[in-house]
Amino acid sequence: MEISVIKIGGNVIDHPEKCKEFLRSFAEFPGYKILVHGGGVLASRIGKSLGIEPKMVNGRRITDEKTLEVVTMVYAGLINKQLVAQLQAYGQNAIGMTGADGNIIRSIKRPVKDIDYGYAGDVVEINSSLLANLVEQQLAPVICAITHDRNGLLLNTNADTIASTLATSLATQHTINLYYCFDRAGVLMDVNDERSRIPLIDEDIYEDLKKSEIIHSGMLPKLENAFAALNQGVSNVWMGLPERLLQAATGENSGTIIRSKKHQLR
Amino acid sequence: MEISVIKIGGNVIDHPEKCKEFLRSFAEFPGYKILVHGGGVLASRIGKSLGIEPKMVNGRRITDEKTLEVVTMVYAGLINKQLVAQLQAYGQNAIGMTGADGNIIRSIKRPVKDIDYGYAGDVVEINSSLLANLVEQQLAPVICAITHDRNGLLLNTNADTIASTLATSLATQHTINLYYCFDRAGVLMDVNDERSRIPLIDEDIYEDLKKSEIIHSGMLPKLENAFAALNQGVSNVWMGLPERLLQAATGENSGTIIRSKKHQLR
Repeated sequence: MEISVIKIGGNVIDHPEKCKEFLRSFAEFPGYKILVHGGGVLASRIGKSLGIEPKMVNGRRITDEKTLEVVTMVYAGLINKQLVAQLQAYGQNAIGMTGADGNIIRSIKRPVKDIDYGYAGDVVEINSSLLANLVEQQLAPVICAITHDRNGLLLNTNADTIASTLATSLATQHTINLYYCFDRAGVLMDVNDERSRIPLIDEDIYEDLKKSEIIHSGMLPKLENAFAALNQGVSNVWMGLPERLLQAATGENSGTIIRSKKHQLR
Repeated sequence: MEISVIKIGGNVIDHPEKCKEFLRSFAEFPGYKILVHGGGVLASRIGKSLGIEPKMVNGRRITDEKTLEVVTMVYAGLINKQLVAQLQAYGQNAIGMTGADGNIIRSIKRPVKDIDYGYAGDVVEINSSLLANLVEQQLAPVICAITHDRNGLLLNTNADTIASTLATSLATQHTINLYYCFDRAGVLMDVNDERSRIPLIDEDIYEDLKKSEIIHSGMLPKLENAFAALNQGVSNVWMGLPERLLQAATGENSGTIIRSKKHQLR
């Protein structure tokens, strides 16, 4: 099968109109598909109204016991089910899941080194056969960033990581394209100019961009992850605005495609 | 297939040790199975810490917009995922669902007559083929009391009603036994004496119990629902303590069995 793994960030989810527009595109997106979503913005807001201040170190959330309850409620409950209900309204059958459901994503509590991230999970195993089975029944899995350790513990897990590990795990059996929807037009030569989008990046171009220090710090790990996914069998990685997703599907010039030289052009 | 639909109330869920004991029994319960759960106690508590006072009329919750968000978070998020993660720890593969997931339970917003119940859903349609398909893969669906209207709206729905409508819908194709776990040993002759449990109730016994006014008011609708389920093809209905569930499965005398005279003895 050819399956698209599409990741949407918390910023889009926090804007009801943008989010609906994205979901309409997802419903229209051709072929087999899986949605992975974040939701940190809303989790922080609801946590605050429960008197729980978000704790961040180096841009990563520290998940204490109360925070784990909040993210479980917000990601797996409120956001996941609103996304699924809206997709159903657009005629896309969908099934919301955490990593605990069907045991699709097993993780371990992150070992404490310099920083104790609390109930943060690092992915160790994907049950890709159940996912492929659901997808084959025309059900789009909608997966939030909660996993489990198979010993009864739920764990808060980075949604970008979930998207890329799902993609590489499925890539052992299927043709996988990975789409990251975020709040930029793609990888930009000049972060302040949306018109400076780079349409295609392969290993050579990436090396040049790094050498010339054109790529800003926030984009580096995303590109590292993208090449790691390509090296583990993912066919293409795309990054761009959610409203350009359908154009990407039809091969129109939109966003940034990251593709290994080793792979044939699609 | 023979499938057991097991309903567990919010009171058990609110006691971590009792809940774990129940989940261990559910994991050991033989054959194909589906879990339906409530969670009103915890939803009221979390709602209050968010400044939302629960509104009840005649023992039924009025679901305004904020309350719908709270029950979606608590039922579909916190409780559902904790139950699933714990079942995985006990070796029972499980998949948590609302009615929106896989479009398994479609409902309509309850029409306003004397009382406006707000975002309360009355079940209109069950997708029992997806449920049977999951069950056949040894996945136990864990279903919370949130449904959807297929137009993007999530709706708060009575968990007892979900259990009985799931059971009757599945009964058109399968042999269904329905189990209600609650905080009494079964149907009691004397509500203050757990030893006065009635082991078996059929139509005749029920008529006698009603005539002699032995059954107290809270139990009447439960028995009416039980006979309605039997009349729509469910084989047996059982009511009793969660810690007696495994005994019920093996045919030991525990709880109350409600069975139609029209059905053969099991």
